[in-house]
Amino acid sequence: MSFALDERLARDTLVVGDRPLCRVLLMNDSRWPWLILVPRREGAVELSDLGAADRALLIEEAASAATFLKAHTRALKINIGALGNIVPQLHLHVVARDVGDPAWPGPVWGHGAAAPYAEAKARALIEASKTELGI
Amino acid sequence: MSFALDERLARDTLVVGDRPLCRVLLMNDSRWPWLILVPRREGAVELSDLGAADRALLIEEAASAATFLKAHTRALKINIGALGNIVPQLHLHVVARDVGDPAWPGPVWGHGAAAPYAEAKARALIEASKTELGI
Repeated sequence: MSFALDERLARDTLVVGDRPLCRVLLMNDSRWPWLILVPRREGAVELSDLGAADRALLIEEAASAATFLKAHTRALKINIGALGNIVPQLHLHVVARDVGDPAWPGPVWGHGAAAPYAEAKARALIEASKTELGI
Repeated sequence: MSFALDERLARDTLVVGDRPLCRVLLMNDSRWPWLILVPRREGAVELSDLGAADRALLIEEAASAATFLKAHTRALKINIGALGNIVPQLHLHVVARDVGDPAWPGPVWGHGAAAPYAEAKARALIEASKTELGI
């Protein structure tokens, strides 16, 4: 089957581009630098829906995204999560966190309303992501 | 360096045992069947502090824990997260979620107070975990 991005993920994010396994998205929420990795495997919901080779790719792509975000934003900590309670399509959040951010030290998911980026700011972060992730 | 479990993780959990990479813990919170995987690598905080081989092991051990929890509890969805905002030692949460659970569909982290297990219930879940995870 061909890969189709969940429409809620599409609505809430801006596209960065494709890595070997995942489509990389930027959450359109300027409160936190926040990437989402979506394995381009139709029907995947849980980690067990990927093969072991895809799982290894997923964690490598997550580690790269985390390293990029931490260096680029000088964040204190990277949060990684795959929840899927609302959007079942398997997707991995990679979020840069800092003391004093709007949800610190709690989780970002479900916290208040998104604050969309100004276009130039989003564009700059997308371009930096593409360069550093080799997209 | 030898591995030492963070004392807050130790206090909040019961020990299941060791897999090839991770110490497996049961969160002592009966609201959700909830395992925690802690790579036995001293000083690891972010995914990038592990080598690629360890990262591949970590995601395999996470997938096994998720598959076990989902089958054993008949949960609707497994949530996976590595936050570390409070406890920096790298650790991965694997949590069984269901419609109507106390935090559904929000995240479990930081949600209310833990409800410790009755001893027999914890013992049964630990024994099932050991059997299914080959510990």
